[in-house]
Amino acid sequence: MATNNNEVKLLDFWASPFGMRVRIALAEKGVNYENSEQDLKNKSELLLKMNPVHKKIPVFVHNNKPLCESLIILQYIDEVWSDKPALLPSDPYHRAQARFWADFVEKKVYVAGRRVWTTKGEDQEAVAKEFIEHLKILEQELGNKPYFGGDKFGFVDVVFIPFYSWFSAYETLTNFKIEESCPKIIEWAKRCMQRESVAKALPDINKVYDFILESIKRLGL
Amino acid sequence: MATNNNEVKLLDFWASPFGMRVRIALAEKGVNYENSEQDLKNKSELLLKMNPVHKKIPVFVHNNKPLCESLIILQYIDEVWSDKPALLPSDPYHRAQARFWADFVEKKVYVAGRRVWTTKGEDQEAVAKEFIEHLKILEQELGNKPYFGGDKFGFVDVVFIPFYSWFSAYETLTNFKIEESCPKIIEWAKRCMQRESVAKALPDINKVYDFILESIKRLGL
Repeated sequence: MATNNNEVKLLDFWASPFGMRVRIALAEKGVNYENSEQDLKNKSELLLKMNPVHKKIPVFVHNNKPLCESLIILQYIDEVWSDKPALLPSDPYHRAQARFWADFVEKKVYVAGRRVWTTKGEDQEAVAKEFIEHLKILEQELGNKPYFGGDKFGFVDVVFIPFYSWFSAYETLTNFKIEESCPKIIEWAKRCMQRESVAKALPDINKVYDFILESIKRLGL
Repeated sequence: MATNNNEVKLLDFWASPFGMRVRIALAEKGVNYENSEQDLKNKSELLLKMNPVHKKIPVFVHNNKPLCESLIILQYIDEVWSDKPALLPSDPYHRAQARFWADFVEKKVYVAGRRVWTTKGEDQEAVAKEFIEHLKILEQELGNKPYFGGDKFGFVDVVFIPFYSWFSAYETLTNFKIEESCPKIIEWAKRCMQRESVAKALPDINKVYDFILESIKRLGL
């Protein structure tokens, strides 16, 4: 598909791992776009119009057509900007495996991660343990490969790396040290951070920590 | 991809909407396969070996390589048996829309549906209402089209239609009548049921109801 004459806009929120995924993919594909930072406490008419079903960011607007849900947006970007290196492998089995691990990050890592900062005391300890168990499964899947798909930075890396910007806050809120259980995940994360696409998309970890503290207070947790 | 020399096996459970999806897709693509019915109360070594992460059916085993998670399996089947009519549209934006609605069925319809039979009293009434609200959104998306993707039976239809076999049980357990709120969804479901692929994959609604009653009892709900 021709990639000129593209009007690309991203409804985004700086601390969102889901928004970061799209930012990374767009940088990897060399796509220029307008980033429209959204106030999630006071949702804009634009956001409600562009994502009436879930009312969530990120929304990717390509030539006035909105797309929602980060994993779906990533696949769309990969399919449309196919002149640049692909995020998903071309072999159907490897594509399915990449989708499987992306789905695992979504269903397990994100969900447990959210519960790490929305719980307290014993509940928090239990969920922190569960979070580490999920990361250990990813550590095993990564093995000695530089990236999840092998030698090349790809789909699963884009999906998972945004959570690295939240790791430090999770560690500060609890007693666990991710590197002790999952040294290869931390090595992989540092490797990803050397890419300009990732370094520019991920926010400062101290800003994320302050944001989480503020959210805990605001939500009365 | 050549579709001969294929050894295809499905680890399945008759009442599972996720298993039904794969059965429908395989029938649509004309793929012969061995169906291995699983005892989910006493999981087989084969299931634990083929899906060590989630330990769930369906698992699709293609030439000894396992694939898990029904939406991922469907996309794999569509990519590998590409000589038969495609389930997903070819246009990237329409593909993204199909993935969006499949994801909606997964996150909203399935989750609320499960809560319909795992709750009681006021909770159940509230969740039944929520379930109908989700169906209304799908009713609106369907509009006057024969199928979700337009004139052709496709991805979203395969993903959503299995839940039709559970509708009658939901109605019997609660006081709502889906057809009153969502007549077009019921028309669409009856249209889908005229396809051999769907009619053969969906179990008898009375058997599903008995299965749900037995599950409620077994789980002490």
